[in-house]
Amino acid sequence: MTAPEAICSQVLKRITPDEEERERVFSLAEEVMDRLRALLAEEGLWSDVRLEGSLAKDTWLSGEADVDIFVRFRPDTPRRFFRTRFLELAKEATKGLEQVERFAEHPYLECYAEGIRINIVPCYAVEQGAWLSATDRTPYHTEYVRARLDERLKGEVRLLKKFMKGIGAYGAELRTGGFSGYLCELLAIYYGGFLEALRAASRWRRRTVIDPAGHYAGHEDEAIELFRHHLIVIDPVDPGRNAAASVSIEKMALFILAAREFLKKPSEVFFFPKGPERIDLDGLRMEIRSRGTSLIAIHVEFYDMAPDVLWGQLWRTLKALNGLLKAEGFTVLRSTAWADETSNCVLLFELESAVLPPVEKHIGPPIWLEEHVERFIEKSARDPSLICGPFIEKDRLCVLKKRKWPNALSWLKERLRRGGREVGVAPLLAKHMARGFRLFSGEGIAELCGELKGLRPFLLDFLRGRPGWLADRGR
Amino acid sequence: MTAPEAICSQVLKRITPDEEERERVFSLAEEVMDRLRALLAEEGLWSDVRLEGSLAKDTWLSGEADVDIFVRFRPDTPRRFFRTRFLELAKEATKGLEQVERFAEHPYLECYAEGIRINIVPCYAVEQGAWLSATDRTPYHTEYVRARLDERLKGEVRLLKKFMKGIGAYGAELRTGGFSGYLCELLAIYYGGFLEALRAASRWRRRTVIDPAGHYAGHEDEAIELFRHHLIVIDPVDPGRNAAASVSIEKMALFILAAREFLKKPSEVFFFPKGPERIDLDGLRMEIRSRGTSLIAIHVEFYDMAPDVLWGQLWRTLKALNGLLKAEGFTVLRSTAWADETSNCVLLFELESAVLPPVEKHIGPPIWLEEHVERFIEKSARDPSLICGPFIEKDRLCVLKKRKWPNALSWLKERLRRGGREVGVAPLLAKHMARGFRLFSGEGIAELCGELKGLRPFLLDFLRGRPGWLADRGR
Repeated sequence: MTAPEAICSQVLKRITPDEEERERVFSLAEEVMDRLRALLAEEGLWSDVRLEGSLAKDTWLSGEADVDIFVRFRPDTPRRFFRTRFLELAKEATKGLEQVERFAEHPYLECYAEGIRINIVPCYAVEQGAWLSATDRTPYHTEYVRARLDERLKGEVRLLKKFMKGIGAYGAELRTGGFSGYLCELLAIYYGGFLEALRAASRWRRRTVIDPAGHYAGHEDEAIELFRHHLIVIDPVDPGRNAAASVSIEKMALFILAAREFLKKPSEVFFFPKGPERIDLDGLRMEIRSRGTSLIAIHVEFYDMAPDVLWGQLWRTLKALNGLLKAEGFTVLRSTAWADETSNCVLLFELESAVLPPVEKHIGPPIWLEEHVERFIEKSARDPSLICGPFIEKDRLCVLKKRKWPNALSWLKERLRRGGREVGVAPLLAKHMARGFRLFSGEGIAELCGELKGLRPFLLDFLRGRPGWLADRGR
Repeated sequence: MTAPEAICSQVLKRITPDEEERERVFSLAEEVMDRLRALLAEEGLWSDVRLEGSLAKDTWLSGEADVDIFVRFRPDTPRRFFRTRFLELAKEATKGLEQVERFAEHPYLECYAEGIRINIVPCYAVEQGAWLSATDRTPYHTEYVRARLDERLKGEVRLLKKFMKGIGAYGAELRTGGFSGYLCELLAIYYGGFLEALRAASRWRRRTVIDPAGHYAGHEDEAIELFRHHLIVIDPVDPGRNAAASVSIEKMALFILAAREFLKKPSEVFFFPKGPERIDLDGLRMEIRSRGTSLIAIHVEFYDMAPDVLWGQLWRTLKALNGLLKAEGFTVLRSTAWADETSNCVLLFELESAVLPPVEKHIGPPIWLEEHVERFIEKSARDPSLICGPFIEKDRLCVLKKRKWPNALSWLKERLRRGGREVGVAPLLAKHMARGFRLFSGEGIAELCGELKGLRPFLLDFLRGRPGWLADRGR
């Protein structure tokens, strides 16, 4: 077995940008910033154009540079300005590049040059704590982290970020519900290194509190009361913010498990997971057929939804449909969602069986409640689906009835026909659903994989269930 | 609608013995008692031969006379004597009649003459409260009831007993778990009549306390604490005994429901239920096939088990197998047991389906428990039935596995092979089971109905579920 330190130093070589890459990325950043500064100067408004994010902190990963340019304005700048003139200027400064306007919570411009993403984000120049918009904290985050990183620690941050990416726990966006870059920086700094963070995480408990700046020193219970999350990392620049609020219980558990596994059996596979197996559609069909479960996929086309909006809708919808399928008697083994960048999303369910036995028991009122009993008897007598009863079990009346929806596909088809809002499909997704959706089941899902790029490896990962880095365990 | 009083008086005519029947029954009783007295006199022991039970109280039903002859002995008579010499003398006194020795809780002789059952039961002549055996109370019961019955009330008792028989709630034996004759007498006396008892019962609640002799007057909560039954009727001759201890919650509920229904829509059908429909084996097969559920029957032959012993074993076994089938994932809709007088018993289960989907989810330990997680991962990796995982759900590891017993019949066959004691088959039944049993499912059960007299109408009633007197409701 290779020592974890040896693995880390090998990985570090692969993920640290070299001089040539730095030169290329920074000159691109400077170029855009210079043009932006010139345009803003013409405009006559006070502004401060700054490089933020992992580039400013030197914690970015080779081949994955994101240029985050923040423009600070005076607090009296009208909010409208961010959505209007500012975006125009940002577009002007990046003319010729591929541009996407983003409106998630805060308007900003995203563009691409030579495969590098450039974000141009407006914010207010405010004192620490006097936040006017969600992005006002960023310059303070940069400052906090830069002041605490030396060359060694920058490498440790890179290792932790890459580890999180490798295990699928990186990213605060709703799709992932994982660890942000800033959170990785805070953890590496707090614990003093990558392996130290892994060792600590492997002993984390539910409701772990980490408070790097000591805002709650001696009153950690208050933090637990205030932030009702599983993992609580008090933002050093804002005692009212949990920097780990985005981390779902699943991703926290995933990180803990991966940390333990890595410390037991270090391997580059945690950082660089193997690509999905190659399998043709016939192989996929065979695999689905022989599995013994019932797979159901719902394909919906969408447009005009930012990823965080879409994923909020997808997760809510998945939870609601899971609950209702269960209430109908189906056993949902697992469920998940998939979406591509542009317009296709898929809700995926794995059921013990999509078909239930045709008869079910209904447990009626206890005998003591005379009026309820009376109504139950009357109703049963008129019920054409009655098979047997009413009979008495313990102190209750019961009947056997023909099940109304023995088939999950028919149930979904009917329930989603008008969008499914009444069964808990989130409203924006329901609008798209109402325009049309397609149901696939069993081997039919292979056809959908043939249509939608990226669904096939996702489905294969889902079918395996087991993370790649667990695959050799115990054998 | 006929008034309930009119129904009652019609029924009363049919169930009250006429002079000719009385003459016949009493002369038979006197004859046996005389012979018994003569034999006991020769024996030189002090004894007191008395007629007890419904004959003594004049509450018996026409065509259903039971001659209960009790012989009281001095308290110093050895218990052994009841099992030995006493039975010999009782046999001698009934020579020529069909005889059965009974040993349930207390030895006694049962014999049959002209279709009339004669029980000859030994007991001790003790003061009230100083009971030496379970049957010592009987003479006091007779005395208590006789002192309180006039001609009208005797009829009311007869109506209540016949009503209980008609709805299947009559009898304190384990098979029925219902209302004893003495309990019917107490209720009719306490409430002052049949309809009065029905009206009261239709408003009974769980843990109803009836205390005719006022043993607990002002301290009814003590009775509730002392007797942990659903229905508590304090025995007037023994404050430490619940005369309704034998009544199961199902039979209590059944009586309440029937009482309400009769008061709403009086009918002779409550007293004289229609016989079961006639159906041939092909019709039965068709009915089972089209029902949509899975029926399973286990046939066991037994010998040398008194009914109360057998039924104790059957109910316990049914409960245990229900629980284990449920734990294996099967949905047991209903279950019941049947036995004939001599040697055949059948456990009957109705399942949603006897076959379960081939894959099931196992929920493993929460991620925080490092050693459990480690063991779960190791075990899963070596498990040939693993289909998928381990994956993380909430904070737990989960896997999908091939189900070990997807078929209830195979499971039962394997589990009962050596008698099934380890799956909760009651010990005496397990002994018979170990010698051999037969499993029937679906239409195959029709064959068993062809073999066992009385099983067919029982099965038909079970398939309907609904009591005959509920059949017209709401239509």
